[in-house]
Amino acid sequence: MTRHYLDHASTCPLRPEAARAITEFLERGVFADAGRPYGEGRLVAAAIEEARDAVAALVNVSSRQVIFTSGGTESANWANWAAREATGDGPIVFSPVEHSAVRRSAERYGPVTTIPVDSFGRVDLDSIDRLLAGDVALPALVNCQLANHQVGTIQPVREIVGRCHGSQVPVHVDACMAIGQMSVDLGKLDADYVSFSAHKLGGPTGVGALVVGRATRISPLLLGGAEERARRAGMESVLSIVGLGAVARTLAEPGALEETARRTRGLTDAIAQAALGVPGVVTYGDPVARVPHLVCFGVPGVTAEGVVMGLDQAGLAVHSGSACASEAFKPSPALAAMGVDANHSLRCSVGWSTDDGDVAAFASAFPAVVGKLRSLAS
Amino acid sequence: MTRHYLDHASTCPLRPEAARAITEFLERGVFADAGRPYGEGRLVAAAIEEARDAVAALVNVSSRQVIFTSGGTESANWANWAAREATGDGPIVFSPVEHSAVRRSAERYGPVTTIPVDSFGRVDLDSIDRLLAGDVALPALVNCQLANHQVGTIQPVREIVGRCHGSQVPVHVDACMAIGQMSVDLGKLDADYVSFSAHKLGGPTGVGALVVGRATRISPLLLGGAEERARRAGMESVLSIVGLGAVARTLAEPGALEETARRTRGLTDAIAQAALGVPGVVTYGDPVARVPHLVCFGVPGVTAEGVVMGLDQAGLAVHSGSACASEAFKPSPALAAMGVDANHSLRCSVGWSTDDGDVAAFASAFPAVVGKLRSLAS
Repeated sequence: MTRHYLDHASTCPLRPEAARAITEFLERGVFADAGRPYGEGRLVAAAIEEARDAVAALVNVSSRQVIFTSGGTESANWANWAAREATGDGPIVFSPVEHSAVRRSAERYGPVTTIPVDSFGRVDLDSIDRLLAGDVALPALVNCQLANHQVGTIQPVREIVGRCHGSQVPVHVDACMAIGQMSVDLGKLDADYVSFSAHKLGGPTGVGALVVGRATRISPLLLGGAEERARRAGMESVLSIVGLGAVARTLAEPGALEETARRTRGLTDAIAQAALGVPGVVTYGDPVARVPHLVCFGVPGVTAEGVVMGLDQAGLAVHSGSACASEAFKPSPALAAMGVDANHSLRCSVGWSTDDGDVAAFASAFPAVVGKLRSLAS
Repeated sequence: MTRHYLDHASTCPLRPEAARAITEFLERGVFADAGRPYGEGRLVAAAIEEARDAVAALVNVSSRQVIFTSGGTESANWANWAAREATGDGPIVFSPVEHSAVRRSAERYGPVTTIPVDSFGRVDLDSIDRLLAGDVALPALVNCQLANHQVGTIQPVREIVGRCHGSQVPVHVDACMAIGQMSVDLGKLDADYVSFSAHKLGGPTGVGALVVGRATRISPLLLGGAEERARRAGMESVLSIVGLGAVARTLAEPGALEETARRTRGLTDAIAQAALGVPGVVTYGDPVARVPHLVCFGVPGVTAEGVVMGLDQAGLAVHSGSACASEAFKPSPALAAMGVDANHSLRCSVGWSTDDGDVAAFASAFPAVVGKLRSLAS
């Protein structure tokens, strides 16, 4: 059966340019510790630095601001750990729509303060103002995702960084859902810590980066050797870094991100149109200010689990924030915070491998699956 | 120029079976979040579990004891962090010959006690006895590497685990230098935490494992999603895990490790013989109880940096514990603890890609390089 993969926001299939770069590196057959002074070591170091330059160019920072990690989760854990180490006992701030890696790592290391979101999942700027103007301890860190991973709403991160920096409060931005999907200028944003994962933009799993501010001095989370300018110990994940570099190079080409966003927005708009044709279905998140590649629905009268399974049988891979339809133990608290019932939520997301045939398959299968489930339930 | 790579103990070139497995996985083109219930997710989960089974078989533990990490450094950091979390305020114990990932992560999280080593770098069992019998707080953790990374000396880990468990003290074994080089039975060893890196045995860089004891409940270092049975959050590094699995399968074949060890021991013995022919050269570490694939020399009258550079120009890649000849800022404290001057140390290590031609190249170049450096110095 032809498969239709509509879960790019969970993980994007490896882009052909990444697969090609990895294959070429395998064929070249040069493997060594990049920290060694002999020929093989210098070749590996050059491959890593070439990838770092490509990533830096994609997000408009200098290469030395880019620290390769094992992925967005490590980056988010590290930022929260480092801010707690550096800034004392103030609360770490986040909203309930943050990814679990942010929420859970923030909660571990000291007091936290949560800030509310509106029904689109957008964080409330007035709450930030109150935290910064309050007569209690200033936050040790404010976490804010660049865009929400369940509904796609783009957050007001520029405003948050501006406000926080006015009070010398550092900011961590989880940019996993945005980098590679739309133009993101981290140089202009000037956040202290920015996390992202290669696999969300078509690079390999198991690699990502923490991009630190121009003046940010970060304490290592992983200690040992002097890799990554002595900021992140552990042998570099060379194959994955090379794959990420190839993707970054492609996406940094003039107009590439704009064209990607235009294309994915067209695909998710078509998916939304098809879904909204089913009675009762609604979209969640900001209908305008959302990342272009994902769209989230509420599907009343059926369980998300049933829809995910039914679509899987029809050849489609989609996601839900329901606990039963993902690896999580609890339904998505991000959705609950927006007043959305995760048990009836469905997320479709697209990318480089998605075509009109995938959308047509969804438009055909979705009404049939929901109709069948509803008739069984009634 | 033909290159002769004699630094397998830093990183072993990717084995052909790993490259093949990664290439096949790339060609299969199935990429998804292994935690998702749809078809693509289940295929990726199956690939990860197949690799986990192979690793478990290689070291004789059950698959659920194997937690994939980003490598030995993360594993060692995690073990030290977890032991501190779990066991209160007793000192964390290590000897100065441990890898920097162990020493530095042990030192971060509370009090430490160091134990001495003999001139071969072997840890002193009497010191362990005294720590366990003392009227002060019992250790929170005892770290002991399975084999030393600079000189190859095999440590008395069985004795240490036995003594420590007699006092309910947990043990972390850094097995990076031993797994895949000789037969290692972690089921029998029964340590609480065992770290290793895929790239030391010919798997990809950026992946490794923490093998926990049958009854060990470990608190996650990286928080977020429920990957790795909710013990290590972050999307699995699938390509690297598949590569590691292929290597583990090869090495777990009957007789494979014994044949590997016999072959590498022959190669390092031949290298040692050639080196010892140069006046003044001595070997470091236990001449008998050492891992078969590495041998360490003292080369008086020349700097290690000069020898590494001279050999590089002659086409050979070797390592030194000298600060100038590695990425470290300080000379290896492991060597200093054995009474060895790291600035005159040289380590040669071999593996699957090494042949008699590499040894012959060393035998020819080493006396010439040392002779030239000594004549320049005199």
